[in-house]
Amino acid sequence: MTDLQKELEFISQYDNSDYGDNFLLTWEKSTDELKATLAIAEIFKEIHRKGGSFRQFDTGLAVSIFRDKSTRTRYSFASAANALGLSVVDLDEEKSQIAHGETVRETANMLSFLTKAIGIRDDMYIGQGNTYMREVASALDTGFEEGTLHQRPALVNLQCDIDHPTQSMSDLAMLKYHFGSLENLKGKKIAMSWAYSPSYGKPLSVPQGIIGLMTRFGMDVTLAHPEGYSLLPEVTDLAQKNASSSGGSFQITHSMEESFTDAHVVYPKSWAPFHVMEERTQLLKSGDKSGLTQLEQECLSNNRKFMNWECDEAKMKLTNNGEALYMHCLPADISGVSCEQGEVSASVFEKYRKATYQEAGYKPFIIAAMIYLMTSPNPQLSLGKLLHQFNK
Amino acid sequence: MTDLQKELEFISQYDNSDYGDNFLLTWEKSTDELKATLAIAEIFKEIHRKGGSFRQFDTGLAVSIFRDKSTRTRYSFASAANALGLSVVDLDEEKSQIAHGETVRETANMLSFLTKAIGIRDDMYIGQGNTYMREVASALDTGFEEGTLHQRPALVNLQCDIDHPTQSMSDLAMLKYHFGSLENLKGKKIAMSWAYSPSYGKPLSVPQGIIGLMTRFGMDVTLAHPEGYSLLPEVTDLAQKNASSSGGSFQITHSMEESFTDAHVVYPKSWAPFHVMEERTQLLKSGDKSGLTQLEQECLSNNRKFMNWECDEAKMKLTNNGEALYMHCLPADISGVSCEQGEVSASVFEKYRKATYQEAGYKPFIIAAMIYLMTSPNPQLSLGKLLHQFNK
Amino acid sequence: MTDLQKELEFISQYDNSDYGDNFLLTWEKSTDELKATLAIAEIFKEIHRKGGSFRQFDTGLAVSIFRDKSTRTRYSFASAANALGLSVVDLDEEKSQIAHGETVRETANMLSFLTKAIGIRDDMYIGQGNTYMREVASALDTGFEEGTLHQRPALVNLQCDIDHPTQSMSDLAMLKYHFGSLENLKGKKIAMSWAYSPSYGKPLSVPQGIIGLMTRFGMDVTLAHPEGYSLLPEVTDLAQKNASSSGGSFQITHSMEESFTDAHVVYPKSWAPFHVMEERTQLLKSGDKSGLTQLEQECLSNNRKFMNWECDEAKMKLTNNGEALYMHCLPADISGVSCEQGEVSASVFEKYRKATYQEAGYKPFIIAAMIYLMTSPNPQLSLGKLLHQFNK
Repeated sequence: MTDLQKELEFISQYDNSDYGDNFLLTWEKSTDELKATLAIAEIFKEIHRKGGSFRQFDTGLAVSIFRDKSTRTRYSFASAANALGLSVVDLDEEKSQIAHGETVRETANMLSFLTKAIGIRDDMYIGQGNTYMREVASALDTGFEEGTLHQRPALVNLQCDIDHPTQSMSDLAMLKYHFGSLENLKGKKIAMSWAYSPSYGKPLSVPQGIIGLMTRFGMDVTLAHPEGYSLLPEVTDLAQKNASSSGGSFQITHSMEESFTDAHVVYPKSWAPFHVMEERTQLLKSGDKSGLTQLEQECLSNNRKFMNWECDEAKMKLTNNGEALYMHCLPADISGVSCEQGEVSASVFEKYRKATYQEAGYKPFIIAAMIYLMTSPNPQLSLGKLLHQFNK
Repeated sequence: MTDLQKELEFISQYDNSDYGDNFLLTWEKSTDELKATLAIAEIFKEIHRKGGSFRQFDTGLAVSIFRDKSTRTRYSFASAANALGLSVVDLDEEKSQIAHGETVRETANMLSFLTKAIGIRDDMYIGQGNTYMREVASALDTGFEEGTLHQRPALVNLQCDIDHPTQSMSDLAMLKYHFGSLENLKGKKIAMSWAYSPSYGKPLSVPQGIIGLMTRFGMDVTLAHPEGYSLLPEVTDLAQKNASSSGGSFQITHSMEESFTDAHVVYPKSWAPFHVMEERTQLLKSGDKSGLTQLEQECLSNNRKFMNWECDEAKMKLTNNGEALYMHCLPADISGVSCEQGEVSASVFEKYRKATYQEAGYKPFIIAAMIYLMTSPNPQLSLGKLLHQFNK
Repeated sequence: MTDLQKELEFISQYDNSDYGDNFLLTWEKSTDELKATLAIAEIFKEIHRKGGSFRQFDTGLAVSIFRDKSTRTRYSFASAANALGLSVVDLDEEKSQIAHGETVRETANMLSFLTKAIGIRDDMYIGQGNTYMREVASALDTGFEEGTLHQRPALVNLQCDIDHPTQSMSDLAMLKYHFGSLENLKGKKIAMSWAYSPSYGKPLSVPQGIIGLMTRFGMDVTLAHPEGYSLLPEVTDLAQKNASSSGGSFQITHSMEESFTDAHVVYPKSWAPFHVMEERTQLLKSGDKSGLTQLEQECLSNNRKFMNWECDEAKMKLTNNGEALYMHCLPADISGVSCEQGEVSASVFEKYRKATYQEAGYKPFIIAAMIYLMTSPNPQLSLGKLLHQFNK
């Protein structure tokens, strides 16, 4: 039996009735829902690889709202929407009247009369990105209940202050591929480590997303960062609870080397300390430019104390057989390539370059799978069509 | 017989040969053409509500040219184009070479080789928006006659200095729904009233569009505004003539209360006086920044004399049974919500919020119907297909 | 036998196996490949004229990267992509993270997971535009070989520092139409002449594209420009070699009148001297603003010495029977219309206005044909479908 047949078999017995209309945090989804997302993504990927189409809609809009810069997530969302048959319309908040006193509720409805999916990136402000997404979700619920909207658009979190589910699910798909199955992740050690970068203010959503998701699949998750670079306490608590339930483990260390030791997977990536992001949010709100500049200087200067937190060949040798899988959400700060001194040495990155591209390549299919499962109450009904596409 | 069957019957006997290639002013269309637009919009809306598709084109572009900010009209145009099978390409005049000496005639042709529809918003300058649209229309006519263009794209006015036909037709669709039929509009009183807003320079096209259209269906239209806030004289003249022909009435008052008394519908909305808009056009042309600032100050200060022109519960009690339908093109300036003191009190707006969303929800279908009737010389030929979609 | 039947017959016997995945320079394509491109463009154009569709893809993205302003090429690319069934996503380098240290290789792959075609305009810097395109091409090759990409997207040069193949091929299509066949171009004289413009820094790619392409079809190509306004030496050398092989001729003169004498076609267009463009590239690289201003002043002042290089009625009288075909890539600097004194007099331009629109009208079909031939290894397989569309 091929792997793809396993995915198809899983889907044929899967009950999608609780999947809901939003994908905002992986920890709001059941394990079966996550497995179904991975399975559909694999099926879509294979159909695409064979030159087939997994289009589901004749027409319809997919609205994207990017409140922070993005290249790869923007293209992943556009690719996913297009492959499903939807046309992307960016909500450009400069062109629109959003800033002119419209409420979120009204705008959410106005954008959605013929819209099947909405993707939002809002990761700059602690306590706000995910909150904004929930306001949109609630407005869409009301609009659908009141009959303003003929259908409830699927809402996808394209990165917020808490989680980055399209990234962590793509990473999980990569791990599943790398180790052969989700079952094989049990007992594998992953080091989610802070790494030095000459920049500042990188969101916390990637490390939070990784520890919140991988602890559910029995992995031994080690979070490593210098003292003072902690994540949202709710998420580290959650990771602890997940690990207990899944038979995995979760620990925090302040040594990159310790986290790398015997690791099967390493994910070295820079982020700003939680308390800095909170302070920054307040300064941005109050428009305190000199305060922001001072905070940036302090933070960059503090970062420089930890320039040895680089993923280099010496540290990779500490990993399991010296051959841990290196992961990154891209773009990485590569020493001597994209910056003088950064998150990863050029030789380590080059060795794993193809793997990181492959990791990124799951994202369009993961997003498509999320939208598909949110808009298809009975995915089995389309399964015949999918198989037909797959077999052609 | 259901209402939708009535629409289908109307269309089956409707002669579309005079509909033309432009929808620039409602008063350039016959009553039957307006009825057909409403009927097709209703049919499209019902197909969409049932999850069907009213796609008409396999491929083709829809070009949008927004010379003023827009959210809901932008999305309505994008939704309409997408639902018909067209892909929207915005003409971003900053990205393009428009400002570099190209004539309107040339650009209109260059954008249109594979284009099925063009939508233009140009509402900032008195005497210019509609004029620009006619220049584009004429260029497209010539391009088609000369064989440069294989087809004549449909041209839709998405708001100009004179009319806002996609808005007023959506409003008419809402009134038809609210009162059960166009026939039932006869003798119903609508108050198109100025309202206070802490902003300045709002276009005249909505009130002009409403009085120019609703007077054709036998309504008793009362235009209310403070002295000095008059509309384009040509349009008030037209409204008077329309009322005489249709058996309705048209009058102007300087009391919001008087207009609301016994009204079945109220449409309270701010606008800038015609003479201010003219002065502003001249100042903008000559790039007189200090003149513009002074005009804005004068105008805002003058507005403040009329802060009691707010649609509140007391005024709503004056209306027919105290239950007039409140309408607005959105976004409304809601007192205590989107501004300190504005066009409508929070309690009145909240009572009618769902109705205003519903009103807005007609726009994508109205625009789709306009494009469809401009590009389908024999809509009956597609009727079978529409019915098939509808019945599926 | 109609002309279109000839095109279909040519295609039915054409071997497309060497067409490749990039269209970067016309001189990298065999004459048969160019003929096939023209033939497919003509077939697509005729299908469109009859209201048919030449859609080839169910879904897929077309990525456009414009590093210089564009209206008509932007719309031509969007039209071509849409007609083939692809959705355009612009890579807006301001919105994206491109400037933040990402390598070209990584970005090229990240944009391409579900992408069928990429179009790039990069014409501002001598020695860089075409080089950048080749870096993208190489990254796409590697991505496809490594399995990161399921398919290799077709790459189209939408104007670089060396060539403007979508323009020159559209011009060739126009010449083929005007003279009845490619064979009829033999012995026809075309004057590719510099012309005065009150602007500065216009790319060299159009004149280079014209002399590099038209010399291959036996035309007598005369390049005319004031002393000091020479093109890239490699391209003039190439034109010389092409002319020898094809039985045509190539010469350079410093007299607009001489080039026009007995010409069957004239193409008067401004450009900046090669050495100025090189100096400008250096100044732009080093961010030397005052140097750039000084260079612009010098160049504009030098241009003014050649204000008599205008295509006017007197010079047109020198051409073959006074009736040479006037060509331009548009927008032209028209004296008294788009500038005080420019490349062409108003009366000459108006006489040929329709012809220049027709010339521009080939571009969407040329681009569609290029993408089609790059993505369809066996165009004959689709020929039945094309014919079916054509005959409907």
